[in-house]
Amino acid sequence: MDKIRFFGEQIAHLIEELDFRKEPPELYDPIAYTMNQGGKRLRPLLTLLACDLFGGDIQKALYPALSIEVFHNFTLVHDDIMDRAPLRRGKETVYKKWNSDIAILAGDTMFALAYTYALKTDAEIVPEILTVFSKAAIEVCEGQQYDMNFEQLASVSIDEYIRMIRLKTAVLLGASLEIGAICARADQNDVRKLYQFGIELGIAFQLKDDLLDVYGDTEKFGKLSGGDIATNKKTFLYLKAMELANNRQNKELKQWYSQNTTIDPNHKIQAVKKIFDELNIQNLTGETMTGYFERSLAHLDSVHADATRKDDLRLFATQLFNRTY
Amino acid sequence: MDKIRFFGEQIAHLIEELDFRKEPPELYDPIAYTMNQGGKRLRPLLTLLACDLFGGDIQKALYPALSIEVFHNFTLVHDDIMDRAPLRRGKETVYKKWNSDIAILAGDTMFALAYTYALKTDAEIVPEILTVFSKAAIEVCEGQQYDMNFEQLASVSIDEYIRMIRLKTAVLLGASLEIGAICARADQNDVRKLYQFGIELGIAFQLKDDLLDVYGDTEKFGKLSGGDIATNKKTFLYLKAMELANNRQNKELKQWYSQNTTIDPNHKIQAVKKIFDELNIQNLTGETMTGYFERSLAHLDSVHADATRKDDLRLFATQLFNRTY
Repeated sequence: MDKIRFFGEQIAHLIEELDFRKEPPELYDPIAYTMNQGGKRLRPLLTLLACDLFGGDIQKALYPALSIEVFHNFTLVHDDIMDRAPLRRGKETVYKKWNSDIAILAGDTMFALAYTYALKTDAEIVPEILTVFSKAAIEVCEGQQYDMNFEQLASVSIDEYIRMIRLKTAVLLGASLEIGAICARADQNDVRKLYQFGIELGIAFQLKDDLLDVYGDTEKFGKLSGGDIATNKKTFLYLKAMELANNRQNKELKQWYSQNTTIDPNHKIQAVKKIFDELNIQNLTGETMTGYFERSLAHLDSVHADATRKDDLRLFATQLFNRTY
Repeated sequence: MDKIRFFGEQIAHLIEELDFRKEPPELYDPIAYTMNQGGKRLRPLLTLLACDLFGGDIQKALYPALSIEVFHNFTLVHDDIMDRAPLRRGKETVYKKWNSDIAILAGDTMFALAYTYALKTDAEIVPEILTVFSKAAIEVCEGQQYDMNFEQLASVSIDEYIRMIRLKTAVLLGASLEIGAICARADQNDVRKLYQFGIELGIAFQLKDDLLDVYGDTEKFGKLSGGDIATNKKTFLYLKAMELANNRQNKELKQWYSQNTTIDPNHKIQAVKKIFDELNIQNLTGETMTGYFERSLAHLDSVHADATRKDDLRLFATQLFNRTY
């Protein structure tokens, strides 16, 4: 069995073993529901791969890895309230299935649980791990705030957008790798390089997400296709289109993005997609994404570590980059 | 200057020095607004007094103390969303002044900030401090869930109510003391006794809060008098009244507590207060509260520590017990 699959099973097993049949069930049922939904579990995998990259004992990194996955799921539970999102991974969101109060409190509890898991490793590395973890947590919140701000702004630059997804998505990938490296007591310089690898990879990853929302396989993706368009989300695709649009396209895009079409958004999605296609947005986004991806690999290359183990991380990054859902 | 005042000023100074003029302001303004509102700052004071009790250096306990205060304020910001509370400490709540999305995210950020502050002490005690802190954080969430459940239940026993306030309020007072004691490297047995002191004190403190809501000085208390009655909150006073009510009183109480009187709740408050008075609820609650207070002091007495320093904690607890707002 290859390493990525093996590590993935270790994490899946650890999550399965978690027992959320606790009191009060109104609090723990939504947590169990969230954690049992699967998802890509990409962040804990990055932690284990980073630990292994430096020859560390992945048993020491398992709970810190779990901690990041639980934290990530907490942010999704809260984001879904703020975004009024009905679906996540093809299932009802906690906020929709229960209510927003339950989602707030279940999320808060998951955040606290994440910290209890992060403590389950060698005491001497706990302060360093939690420093990285808490810094990332704050930045993720900042990113979410920028994301919400963008909804109210008439125009957002591509630079501002990249800064937002760097905070909202990329820093946690960076932190996942950093924490894995800390578990292996890697050299400070290498830890920093691996963090940079995660940042660039994270931005590429989010651009891929933006692309897949419009051009991905709906059933596998677990969200509605064009959901970002339906909800007027200013993704990279939209911002790039606005940058390149002629007067007619600019006017049409603005018009579509000022409408709330919760019932049957298909007409809107098709019309916006048509403009995206006219402007070659799929390819242009792909090019920008490829740039981030290639820079991420350059950072990985510069790390001092065993070449074969680096290949595992490179393979994993490539799989992420090539995913179709 | 007496010790309690001196420690209080240390904490106030530390909070004043915090700089929340960060980006994005939509996220940090509500945090600054919350942290600058003052409040009793009782929990960080308990941390410093506990550290001092065992001859510890309070400089080592300052940031952990701050951490608990920030955490406590985070819970208030989120609770106010769930309770739809318009006022807190005589001012608009974050949820009311901004909106619930802002309040969710500002709260999440405060939670993460709390952890960054908790890390600012000797690395060797960080794992122990965070273990106590995270356990308390989870229990506070459980308590809040029970509190929300009670809103939906036709009847709640006094025992269930005490369990709820133990989780929602008392464990954090216990943890505040425990963390202060850990900062002073106190003996495990003494740490446990001090925690028990905090638990019993915390329950007495909440019963006092329940009492003050109906019988306190409105202006100083910073909340509407009778707010718990207006919002049908099943406090100790209500549950005790239901326990003792005759048929007529039971029927009247049930009737009042099934009504949502957001506009001019005074008539309802007066009517319920009248029943409370008929049943001697103020004194009965006072007696139960005194029982918890006296048991808390017995735990404090059993701690092995300097008698004069114990007097500081006893004095502080007594001030809490005797407060009129």
